[in-house]
Amino acid sequence: MAKMTPRTLSGFMELLPAQQQQMEHIMETLRKTYALYGFTPLDTPVIESSEVLLAKGGGETEKQIYRFQKGDADLSLRFDLTVPLAKYVALHYNDLTFPFRRYQIGKVYRGERAQRGRFREFYQADIDIIGDGKLSILNEAEIPAIIYKIFSSLGLKRFQICVNNRKVLNGFYAILQLTEKSTDIMRTVDKLDKIGAEKVSAILQNDLGVSEASALEILRFININGSSQDVLSSLESYKGRNELFDQGLEELSTVVRSLSAFGIPEENFTVDLAIARGLDYYTGTVYETVLLDHPEIGSVCSGGRYDNLAEYYTDKQLPGVGISIGLTRLFYILGDQKMLNPNLPTAPADVLILPMTEDLSDAIKLATLLRENGIRVQLHCENKKFKQKISYADKLGIPYVIFLGDDEIKAGVVACKDMKTGEQTKLEAAATVYRIKAGLDNLAQGPVILEG
Amino acid sequence: MAKMTPRTLSGFMELLPAQQQQMEHIMETLRKTYALYGFTPLDTPVIESSEVLLAKGGGETEKQIYRFQKGDADLSLRFDLTVPLAKYVALHYNDLTFPFRRYQIGKVYRGERAQRGRFREFYQADIDIIGDGKLSILNEAEIPAIIYKIFSSLGLKRFQICVNNRKVLNGFYAILQLTEKSTDIMRTVDKLDKIGAEKVSAILQNDLGVSEASALEILRFININGSSQDVLSSLESYKGRNELFDQGLEELSTVVRSLSAFGIPEENFTVDLAIARGLDYYTGTVYETVLLDHPEIGSVCSGGRYDNLAEYYTDKQLPGVGISIGLTRLFYILGDQKMLNPNLPTAPADVLILPMTEDLSDAIKLATLLRENGIRVQLHCENKKFKQKISYADKLGIPYVIFLGDDEIKAGVVACKDMKTGEQTKLEAAATVYRIKAGLDNLAQGPVILEG
Repeated sequence: MAKMTPRTLSGFMELLPAQQQQMEHIMETLRKTYALYGFTPLDTPVIESSEVLLAKGGGETEKQIYRFQKGDADLSLRFDLTVPLAKYVALHYNDLTFPFRRYQIGKVYRGERAQRGRFREFYQADIDIIGDGKLSILNEAEIPAIIYKIFSSLGLKRFQICVNNRKVLNGFYAILQLTEKSTDIMRTVDKLDKIGAEKVSAILQNDLGVSEASALEILRFININGSSQDVLSSLESYKGRNELFDQGLEELSTVVRSLSAFGIPEENFTVDLAIARGLDYYTGTVYETVLLDHPEIGSVCSGGRYDNLAEYYTDKQLPGVGISIGLTRLFYILGDQKMLNPNLPTAPADVLILPMTEDLSDAIKLATLLRENGIRVQLHCENKKFKQKISYADKLGIPYVIFLGDDEIKAGVVACKDMKTGEQTKLEAAATVYRIKAGLDNLAQGPVILEG
Repeated sequence: MAKMTPRTLSGFMELLPAQQQQMEHIMETLRKTYALYGFTPLDTPVIESSEVLLAKGGGETEKQIYRFQKGDADLSLRFDLTVPLAKYVALHYNDLTFPFRRYQIGKVYRGERAQRGRFREFYQADIDIIGDGKLSILNEAEIPAIIYKIFSSLGLKRFQICVNNRKVLNGFYAILQLTEKSTDIMRTVDKLDKIGAEKVSAILQNDLGVSEASALEILRFININGSSQDVLSSLESYKGRNELFDQGLEELSTVVRSLSAFGIPEENFTVDLAIARGLDYYTGTVYETVLLDHPEIGSVCSGGRYDNLAEYYTDKQLPGVGISIGLTRLFYILGDQKMLNPNLPTAPADVLILPMTEDLSDAIKLATLLRENGIRVQLHCENKKFKQKISYADKLGIPYVIFLGDDEIKAGVVACKDMKTGEQTKLEAAATVYRIKAGLDNLAQGPVILEG
């Protein structure tokens, strides 16, 4: 028979089993952390009606959307988890209780040009808190605590949560009487790291018609740095000149004030006035998260406060705050940077049982006992040489191998080999369970991510 | 602004938060059980190249496939998890270790005619064990143990795992010299429950040209029943007349023999000679699982042994055995039959903290302490009336509410209300943690599914 050469589409991540286990560890950490902060899991369809999904208009994204006909229906694959959330909240408004806190880890689709490290199918891991009409600033203050918990649970220490406030920015530009140009200015300022201060200044003056004095003021402003307290103090000098600015400064102060109560170390947090986030709909606190040893990667967890989640679907005012992790890209980068802990268990099982007798009853009973104790077991009964069976455990990194022959069965013991140390014990089944569990607890130590 | 009416496509399940929590409980049970039996998690793309996905040809399914162009590419959404597995194993053959045991819980797509209880996007939960060249019969014997563990972990008792063997069937038809007609005969026999013995007999004789004697023999054969041992004994009478039959009987006996060692109660298992499974590629043991109180639903977990997983992609002989649960449909049915345990916790948090002071530091620290102890916490700082906040906890089913006012902070205690009993305690933070954890352990008891 002629064979079709199997292949996976380019831009679609498909992991080998050991890598997949690492990905599962990360997802499990995210799920657990989100749950601890009172977010409920949500799952929405991958496919939506195009007119619903694209109600806002897609802009830059629209070209990348996977859109197609099926029968009479014009369908699209979701390109983020925010639009489906907006639809969900508007549609199920009467069945939800606000503030509504949800997390969602799901695949989204964007037909980007294929290149290394870019994906067309990728996981986003989002959390959002949605208020009905209004939403307390404390929700914005809690987000950095969640980001901190996520990345430190994954094993990272050298990361920084960067926070700014759009009201501070918009207020500042109002003070300079540049409100109408503020979006263009922020877009330019966003390139500071890439093109440098001189070019930013040139674009501001030549392309956007900002005066030299204002350009200088803008660059001075976004370069304000130091500790969070220092930045807040510097901002005090603008106070009293614009209501929006003052409100933003108050919010930013509240967020900073909560940090120590939330237990976030000073070094993992900064107020960065250069951050604006491209999206137009952020209206308050905005967040980015950078890996300090890999600034070239950009932000690995971003988001902010918005005033109107679902304005395309409902008259209801639904303010919210949310963050998103581009999980597939993050996983790719961690692998690429050799930051995934190679010592974390990735085996499909904790124990491989090799029955050495014709009658398998005792082996099966032992497997059942182990499983009842939460130990993951494979029974290996293939007709292969002993050496091949040991090599199977070895290749997969299965930490314990149990041999069960007539002698052991008669003596009421179990021969169990620790594959790492080579140590072999002959103990009763219950004692073997105890030994393996203790050993596994030791193995399981260590985070998913290792730093440099 | 004109609003777009939000809607979710028909045939696409979108759950409210409490239902979603129930679904998560089920998925978590599946993941845990699969892992205990040494299956490794796998995740493959939802989109595949059409020529790869449809290498086998789709038959009945082909019309239902979501297939579309994106740029030059002819793409399709996966319609099951088996074809992607075949592709995966063929593609990554050199990186895998055999026997390869994987589980996958993922969404698949079929553009079926929309009707109640039928879904176009639905989860399948699959496990497969793939051998390289050959695969021991013990793997087939272990599958009923896994099915038993899954459904009993979910809380079901009144279910039955039905097993048959294709070699027994094919051997039997060879004995009757009906090998060429066997596929058509099995398809007809499969309708026995729906159309009755008389009509089956009529079709066999009139449409398929089976002799009256053979039709009688076939009906007698598939009606053999009683205990597994009884059925095996009845089958002994056909022994020695066909090699394939003898081999199948030997396999079936091995599977039955393992049952008690695997701890499967007699009442949850039966040998059912009427089961053939429609798919052509099953070659050995086949499985179905029925809910005894809801036979009308049909099988909720099916599968079998096949000889050639990936014959369209590779010359390698890759025999395997697998089962699949149509999770979305199962969930829908369980809900429809009111079998989902309404008492299982579905709240987004275990504790709602209501800070009663301007300064939130103590409330935040308490939240952190609770979270460090694995307790899911929401801080509720919205500007709302006390009554509204209590109602928030009540609506969401959050079991504990904590009030933290100046008095409590001064006294170093925490006021904590059990929302179910109304009992309120004032204890130190550590004692409150202890009390809540004990209470939650009690709440968490009970399975996902309740029977009649």
